[in-house]
Amino acid sequence: MYGRDWETFLIPYEQAVEELKVKLRALRTELKRKEEYTPIEFVTGRVKKVSSIIEKAKILNIPLDEVEKVPDIAGLRIMCQFVEDMHRVAEHIRNRKDMVVVEERDYVTNRKPSGYRSYHFIVSYPVQTADGELELLAEVQIRTLAMNFWATIEHSLNYKYKGNIPANVRQRLVGAAEASFHLDNEMSQIREEILVAQILFETKSNT
Amino acid sequence: MYGRDWETFLIPYEQAVEELKVKLRALRTELKRKEEYTPIEFVTGRVKKVSSIIEKAKILNIPLDEVEKVPDIAGLRIMCQFVEDMHRVAEHIRNRKDMVVVEERDYVTNRKPSGYRSYHFIVSYPVQTADGELELLAEVQIRTLAMNFWATIEHSLNYKYKGNIPANVRQRLVGAAEASFHLDNEMSQIREEILVAQILFETKSNT
Amino acid sequence: MYGRDWETFLIPYEQAVEELKVKLRALRTELKRKEEYTPIEFVTGRVKKVSSIIEKAKILNIPLDEVEKVPDIAGLRIMCQFVEDMHRVAEHIRNRKDMVVVEERDYVTNRKPSGYRSYHFIVSYPVQTADGELELLAEVQIRTLAMNFWATIEHSLNYKYKGNIPANVRQRLVGAAEASFHLDNEMSQIREEILVAQILFETKSNT
Amino acid sequence: MYGRDWETFLIPYEQAVEELKVKLRALRTELKRKEEYTPIEFVTGRVKKVSSIIEKAKILNIPLDEVEKVPDIAGLRIMCQFVEDMHRVAEHIRNRKDMVVVEERDYVTNRKPSGYRSYHFIVSYPVQTADGELELLAEVQIRTLAMNFWATIEHSLNYKYKGNIPANVRQRLVGAAEASFHLDNEMSQIREEILVAQILFETKSNT
Repeated sequence: MYGRDWETFLIPYEQAVEELKVKLRALRTELKRKEEYTPIEFVTGRVKKVSSIIEKAKILNIPLDEVEKVPDIAGLRIMCQFVEDMHRVAEHIRNRKDMVVVEERDYVTNRKPSGYRSYHFIVSYPVQTADGELELLAEVQIRTLAMNFWATIEHSLNYKYKGNIPANVRQRLVGAAEASFHLDNEMSQIREEILVAQILFETKSNT
Repeated sequence: MYGRDWETFLIPYEQAVEELKVKLRALRTELKRKEEYTPIEFVTGRVKKVSSIIEKAKILNIPLDEVEKVPDIAGLRIMCQFVEDMHRVAEHIRNRKDMVVVEERDYVTNRKPSGYRSYHFIVSYPVQTADGELELLAEVQIRTLAMNFWATIEHSLNYKYKGNIPANVRQRLVGAAEASFHLDNEMSQIREEILVAQILFETKSNT
Repeated sequence: MYGRDWETFLIPYEQAVEELKVKLRALRTELKRKEEYTPIEFVTGRVKKVSSIIEKAKILNIPLDEVEKVPDIAGLRIMCQFVEDMHRVAEHIRNRKDMVVVEERDYVTNRKPSGYRSYHFIVSYPVQTADGELELLAEVQIRTLAMNFWATIEHSLNYKYKGNIPANVRQRLVGAAEASFHLDNEMSQIREEILVAQILFETKSNT
Repeated sequence: MYGRDWETFLIPYEQAVEELKVKLRALRTELKRKEEYTPIEFVTGRVKKVSSIIEKAKILNIPLDEVEKVPDIAGLRIMCQFVEDMHRVAEHIRNRKDMVVVEERDYVTNRKPSGYRSYHFIVSYPVQTADGELELLAEVQIRTLAMNFWATIEHSLNYKYKGNIPANVRQRLVGAAEASFHLDNEMSQIREEILVAQILFETKSNT
């Protein structure tokens, strides 16, 4: 179907997702063991469905014989507790030598009108296949749990309404996005309070 | 250490957690395939650390030679998008024939003063060991993503401050709990809006 | 295709295979930890392909609307180092309370003319679905590594020749089955030698 | 214990083993999907225990502060059905661009006196840690199922007798190694028979 051997085409993308899940989860484990605190809550990954790839190619004006230019066929998602953790994780992504960042989009500082917040990387990642090395694109999204919660529901609604979410539901979504943003702010303030408490404590301890 | 062969003692609990993770994830998969919507976002599980088991036994006044009465040595957690989904999942837990519910606690209707919200089951679950069947206790917690988000942070803070969270941080936590509660309410209202929209649509379609 | 919603039909079978893999691997882990030796090398599982289920139903004269009578839609395989271990594992299967053995076939004592050796159980296993409990059949095969090695190759050849393996290849297979049988015998003799050595050693130690 | 923070030291090795398992299994999956036959039966991996690392360092005259020179702290094992498959897999290892082969040992052509047969690679593999890239050594062993079967038992006996297997047991082991070698030969002959059969068939089909 869809005029191409999609199953074979997707093999290296599935491989990339599996490898990147293992690699990003290893970063989580390493930081947790060394610091007893990890900026990464959990990591998920998926290969885009064929029907969604075709749809996306259409939106991006990419002809189907150059479909490997669709940047999020392989997708990874990193969930963090705090907005501050997202920046630290982003820095780790930039420093890796097993992938090259080709694009960064900061939808946290600049939210989308829908209320969507997230930090996006497009990376170029080499996969070893039976026929040699293949360089492919993957998208890495970084989010707080609250951002992800909201985005999951927006995604369900978009799927349900096929992209045409009714005005009243969309308005509700903006309200929920506010609630999600507010929760992240509350959390950041707790985090700051803790850091201030620690500095006070350490200053006292040194005198 | 701790005067007992804890490693051997914990084997059946690890087994129970592995089995229950597989079983509860199967429920997720089944509902997703049949209804294209699942009330379960994801499922996690863990065996309590030995030091935490001993601490909990002390709090509950359970002598160490009856430590199997500590109800949450094996712990499972089910995360839902909506508060409404939690009730549906709870009903599935009650209907299962491979475990017996021995206790239910509804911290959603009756939140704890700290702001903690969650639905708790204690179940009795039979495990097959090399020496025969063993009936053991496990705790199953059901939460929304927002409840879980908040609880994760409270847990980190309790760990950091060894149970004595300072007053100002505790106050912030109550504020964050409010924000988490507010987010769940916003989400429930979106959900209702959708259901109303569907009923209107279906009524129209039938005329 | 094949006039039935096979995907939905197979959901509980996939669930059973996942649960039984976890349960049988737990037995492996438990014995390894307690005795530093385990009779189980590894455990695999699979759900039969739809085309193979239909083929098997035909061979067994089972009409497609009673296809749940095909006994190996859910299949588990337990690999052992020694033939002696197989009997111990078989005893564990018989003692479990989470499944009921409905049939046993001993192709070790009575090999098939092809050279096939293996121990087969058909068990009845209850699965909890969203709609209640479902009792289904599963096959549990117990093999040594050498038996499995041979059987894997016979399976490949049967697949390649669609059941009609040419006479000269079949003859070679019987030769290989002999070699596999011989290897198991050599291994059993090593095992005995070790046990004798231990008894001698322990007798000496006690004097 | 053992005068070093071994847990932290081993983190990148655990990471390497996880990554390489995923990568080598992906090769298995890719070949299976493209050719309906795979030279790889299964892949396992493990990090060496601390006590075994120290023992190995002693044998190799490596001081403990250069313990990263022990070449098999990270170990991968690839199991094949046929000896011929091993060579094909070895060629894939040599062609990969995500690791560099630093040593090859062919214990198949030149078996060890004990009867041990296997193909060994030492590779240098880069791991991304939170503190930057780390190049480490890993051992990749390639074996047939029969070679592995024998080696597993030799390993158990070496463990049991702490390296001093009694003469009569050792003699039995050589006998079992012969039986394992014989089984591999029988299998190779089946394989050849099949290939000859295919060539005959294809020649006929073309006339």
